[in-house]
Parts: sequence; C-alpha cells; structure tokens
Amino acid sequence: MQLDRDPVPVAPPAGKISGNKGAGPLVERMAIIGLGLIGGSLGLALLQGGLAREVAGYDREEKAIQAAMQIGAINSPASCPEEAVAGAEVVILAVPVGTLSQVAGAIAPALAPGTIVTDTGSVKGAVVRELEGIFQPRANYVGGHPMAGSERAGIKAADRYLLENAVYVLTPTPATDAGALQRLEELFRVMGARVITMDPEEHDLVVAGISHLPHLLAVSLMQTAGELAREHPLALMLAAGGFRDTTRIAAGDPVMWRDIFLHNRTAILTLLKCWRGQVEALEGMIARGDVEDLQAALQQARSLRAQVPARQKGLLPALHELVVTVPDRPGVIGAMATALGNAGINIIDIEILRVREGEGGSIRLGFTTAAAASKALEILQSKGINARVL
Amino acid sequence: MQLDRDPVPVAPPAGKISGNKGAGPLVERMAIIGLGLIGGSLGLALLQGGLAREVAGYDREEKAIQAAMQIGAINSPASCPEEAVAGAEVVILAVPVGTLSQVAGAIAPALAPGTIVTDTGSVKGAVVRELEGIFQPRANYVGGHPMAGSERAGIKAADRYLLENAVYVLTPTPATDAGALQRLEELFRVMGARVITMDPEEHDLVVAGISHLPHLLAVSLMQTAGELAREHPLALMLAAGGFRDTTRIAAGDPVMWRDIFLHNRTAILTLLKCWRGQVEALEGMIARGDVEDLQAALQQARSLRAQVPARQKGLLPALHELVVTVPDRPGVIGAMATALGNAGINIIDIEILRVREGEGGSIRLGFTTAAAASKALEILQSKGINARVL
Repeated sequence: MQLDRDPVPVAPPAGKISGNKGAGPLVERMAIIGLGLIGGSLGLALLQGGLAREVAGYDREEKAIQAAMQIGAINSPASCPEEAVAGAEVVILAVPVGTLSQVAGAIAPALAPGTIVTDTGSVKGAVVRELEGIFQPRANYVGGHPMAGSERAGIKAADRYLLENAVYVLTPTPATDAGALQRLEELFRVMGARVITMDPEEHDLVVAGISHLPHLLAVSLMQTAGELAREHPLALMLAAGGFRDTTRIAAGDPVMWRDIFLHNRTAILTLLKCWRGQVEALEGMIARGDVEDLQAALQQARSLRAQVPARQKGLLPALHELVVTVPDRPGVIGAMATALGNAGINIIDIEILRVREGEGGSIRLGFTTAAAASKALEILQSKGINARVL
Repeated sequence: MQLDRDPVPVAPPAGKISGNKGAGPLVERMAIIGLGLIGGSLGLALLQGGLAREVAGYDREEKAIQAAMQIGAINSPASCPEEAVAGAEVVILAVPVGTLSQVAGAIAPALAPGTIVTDTGSVKGAVVRELEGIFQPRANYVGGHPMAGSERAGIKAADRYLLENAVYVLTPTPATDAGALQRLEELFRVMGARVITMDPEEHDLVVAGISHLPHLLAVSLMQTAGELAREHPLALMLAAGGFRDTTRIAAGDPVMWRDIFLHNRTAILTLLKCWRGQVEALEGMIARGDVEDLQAALQQARSLRAQVPARQKGLLPALHELVVTVPDRPGVIGAMATALGNAGINIIDIEILRVREGEGGSIRLGFTTAAAASKALEILQSKGINARVL
C-alpha cells in the first residue's frame, strides 16, 4: 500500500481551488460509460472544473443520458458505447461490477491505440485480471475505485463535489503503463481526490473489512430484527437512532451488492471467519458473565473507533461546535446565521438536533477554529440566544 | 405490548406546547438520583416545563450536582440519596443498570409510604424483579425505559427536548399499582414522550434485537477492522461514511454496555443465535455463488429497512427536501435562510452535505410540506441560487 499524499486526510489548503482554471483542459476528449452517481459526478467535476473539453457519455438508459446532458455532466451524448469511446484519450467505465467485463469487451475494438482506460468498480482483484486481459496491450488499463458513495444512486444524485477529499484508490499491477497511471493520478488529484495506489488483492481485503463486511452485518441485523418483529410487531417501531445508523447501508441497491459480494467472495469469506471469532469471544464473555474481559473488549473497540477518521471527505476535519436552543419559527436560523455572517464567522457545519413545532429546538453549529466558535458564542449570547460549547 | 397512543410516531399537533403552562405543577417534590444525560434531561423538562415545583437531585459526583443546579435541571441539591428522596412524591432512579439495586436498597427505608418510584435502566426483566422485591409494598415501583440516548453522556449533554417524541416504555407487572402507573404515564406524556406499556421480558427481547445486538455487532466489527489494520495499516483510514455509521455505537461507554450485556444476557444470547443463522445463510449463498437467493435476501433486508421509522423523535416525519449548491463564504447560510424566513417558510432540517473552503458546497434543506419546499425552490432560484428538489 503506497500513499501518494498525506497519510491522514486533511483539508486542502485554504484558498486552493479544485478544477483547472487558468490552464487549458487536461484532456481533450473523455468518455464515460455508465452515467449513475459516480459517472455523473466525475463528468460534472471534469466539465465544470474545466478539466476536459469534451465529455462523451453513454448509458443503457436513454433517460440517464438526457439527464447527464441537462445537468452538464457530459456534453456529447453517444448512442452506443463504441461511439462514446471513439477518439477519446481517457475512458472511464462507471458501470456496475457485474457488467464491467461485458462492456469492456464491447468497447475494446473501438479504442484508439494507447487510450487510457479505468473503471470505478468497488472490487479490484478479479476485475483487474479480467480487464487487463481484455484491454492490454492495445489500450492502457488501470483499475480504480473512488471511495465515495451514497445510498442515493443514479444521475440525479450526481454531485460535482462527490470526490472532494475522497480517497481514490488506483490499483496498478506489473502490467500497468507508468504514464497512464501518472496521468490518471493527476486527473483525480486535480479533481480534489486523495489518490492512493494499492495492490488489487490488498484493496479487496481492505474494502471487504471496512465496506463489504459492514454491509453484510447490516443486512443480517435487519433480517434478525425482521424475525423479531414477526412476534413482536412494534420492534421495528421502537428501533431508535443507533439502529438506524447501524443498518443504514442495508438500504443499498440489492443488485449492486449481490455483484460486489460475489466478485469479492474470497476476501469476504476470509474476513467473515475473523469476525465470527470476535463475535464468539464476546458471546462467551456474556454467557460466562466475564466482567473484566467484556469491559476490556468494549474499551478496545471504543479506542479503535476513535482512530477512524471523522469527516473522511468534504468537511474540514477539526470542528469546534456550539449547541444553541432556539424558538421554532420561520427565520430563526436565518437571523442567527446572518448575525454570525455579518461578523465574518463562517458556519462550516449545521445540524438540527431536535425541534418541536411551536416550541423550539436545539441546533448544532460547527466552526473551523476555536476562536470562531468562541466569538460565535459571544455574539449569540449577546443576542439573548441560549448557546453553549459542545 | 400495548400502545397507549398512536402506533406510528407522528408529530404532535402544531401549536401543542409541551410542559404544563397555565395549570399548576403535576408534582410538588420530585427526586432524581443520578444526574447524567437522562437524569439531567428529565430534570430540565420537569422544572422548565413547570411540571414539578421542586426537583431534588443527587449524584455520586459532586460536580454533576453543581452542573445540574447551574443549568436548572434540579433546584434542590442533596448531599446523599436518602436526603434527596425524603418527602418526594415521585423518585426517578437514573443511575447505571449495574448500580440500580444498590441505590434502591439505600433509599428504600427513607421513602414515605406510597412514594412512586421508577428507574430508567435499559434492561427490565431482572431489574424489575429485583426492585419490586426491594420497594413493594411500601413504595409503588414501576419499571421504565426512556428510549432516547446519545453517545454523548453526562449532565453536559442534558437537553430539555431529549424526550420529545421519544418512546418511553413502562413495564408494569401484576404487582404494579394502577394509580402509580397512570401518574407516571401522565407525567412522561406531558413531557412530550410517547408512552408505551410492555411486559418486562418482552421489552428485554425487543431491545436486545434493536439495541444490544447492534451494539455487540458494531463492537465485533470494530475489532475485526482492528485486526485487519495490523497488517494493512491504512485500513482504518480508508473506512468511509458507511463504516462510521455502522460502528458509531461502538463508541459508547464500556462500563454501561458491559452492565447492559450482563443484565440482559438471556435475551441477547437468544438473539445472537437467530442472528448467526442469518449470517450463515448469507455466507453460504456467497460461498456457493447463489445469485438469486443472495439478491432476494438483500432485497428483503432493504424492504425491512424501509419499515424502520425515520426521525423516530424530534423532527417532523414527512420531509420535503431541496439541495442547494452555494459559494462557501461567511453569511451565505444566513442570507439563504433569511430569504426563506422573510417569506414565512420554516426550515425544519438543514445539513451541510459537503463543502470545500474557497469554493462552495452542497446543503440539504428540509421543509414540512411540499408547498413550502416548492416555494423555497422558487425563492432560491429567483435569487440565482442553484437549488433542486432531492
């Protein structure tokens, strides 16, 4: 595993602008096959950041092509994949893992020699072996995985900022062309992503642990709650915030996840074995009433959790927070935010914690510096707003 | 399981005010033992809602008593539990599950005959049997569990609105005094909670499924990722949003969770068995490459997840959402929110989705009605702000 930038995600330097204003585009003609969340977001970043002059796009669904044109994620609609890739310097395959090899086989003969091709599939080992076999040596293929997603899928959820501060894994092999790798690294970096290179198999093991296994857990937990709800119908209704968070990812697309599970079978089965050992150890401690070991295990998990980086992408990492209690009426957020804006204080995060119609609620505000937070506290309190440091 | 109010959490009627303004207090003197998140929040709701004239409070930590006085969660500090409960009509034990029986034993002799006592422990079967043995028949004990929490613990996180729209489970038994049950139901309802009565054992099974099992799995998942990170040090760094959500509860207090696991041992072991069956079935499908069954299982989990109520408490349930893309500079949220406030439109939810310093970001806005959302869309677009329906 090789980290090309900072080992810990940090915010980009203030004032740094993503995109490529001032210079010419990095690529004359790009092609994106598959215009969903990832394909659409890449297109938006490429075109609106001035990184590519032409972005040709194709999707199986005509509607997605139209929507991509409308939002400016592509500027050259294609009627088939072959048409999209013709003359493209860089081709991005942003289709589901299950259809990658079929799409690759269809476009390969239409590629100009030396075309750079990358995919965005979340499994790499088997995919990279297969696509290298299809593309090399005519075209220069490099496997990729932008680690940014959302439960919302489809072009409608596309967002120019999706890759901002997101980790973008590229998985070169001994067969990879060094120039192609370098060009893709530059392209995704200029988009604001943190580019990392990793062995395809290592990538698969890591994502099995931090993405596929959690998904499997959420699914199995949801099924268990479903069983429980058969005899105790209000169980799902009582499911509170913690349950919702833990099972959120179980709302993901079943077809996409089916393909991920099947394509990353080996790594997932390896990690399932490790995980089952952890569960059985905890189960034993509970059954035996082993107070000390149980507490130590819970403490260890808590410490590990604290090492998971907060706000992996997007928001600035160090957050200084206030909680304000406000009356619930139109304009109250505006008045508060305006008072802070007038003082030059930028609210970097805001969340309504709870509110009751007709009475009021609590709002969490985040600031980048302790000084900004304490100045905000002073301003809000001077206006008679109930605020405190979180 | 008996639901005393609506089977589905709904927002209170607009204009309904929690608390008891206009009428006299429901209780003259209350006592709260244990001034953490729950005890402090109950105290705030009681005193600031005018539900109790006097709230006596005790905590093992002198600092917590002082803090509770300062924020107005109690108005009568006590130097020992016995002093706090002397003369109280209603006593709330908001101490950790592991210390409940010890505290109960200490205060029982100091209670006036007929005092109503309830606890807030998240395990009920064993606790209710034990506390009934200690309190009955001199005092009238009813087990309780406010299903509102937070990873943040302690009096500093106390919030008057914590119980707003939260489910409050009371667990009467054949030994329960009907008048005491009714009085507690009224008290918690006036605080804005949704009161439900449930058999203690049924309560334990349900919370094992929707709270304790998720916690155990989050812990074991965190441990598995920790194992993985030993050989692949960047694994934790790559852990993205989904992983953070799934393991959020693993950051909970190890001592509190140790006690919960040990006190609810039977129900947890029962549900672990059920869960293991689900995981093994999924594992078998992955190992065999069983495309259809795997997709069906994922689809079923997704459908079940859709039945978990959103915004269980606090926010209004039906949310109509917009996403706006805005420049990132002080005052932009204020200007936007003020424009909407001036038009009489109330922002009921707001979330900064992603932002990049110096460039801009995306903000999600929630409104209670489709009409408000579409009016907001119109206003924002007329001001040149890039907004779209989510």
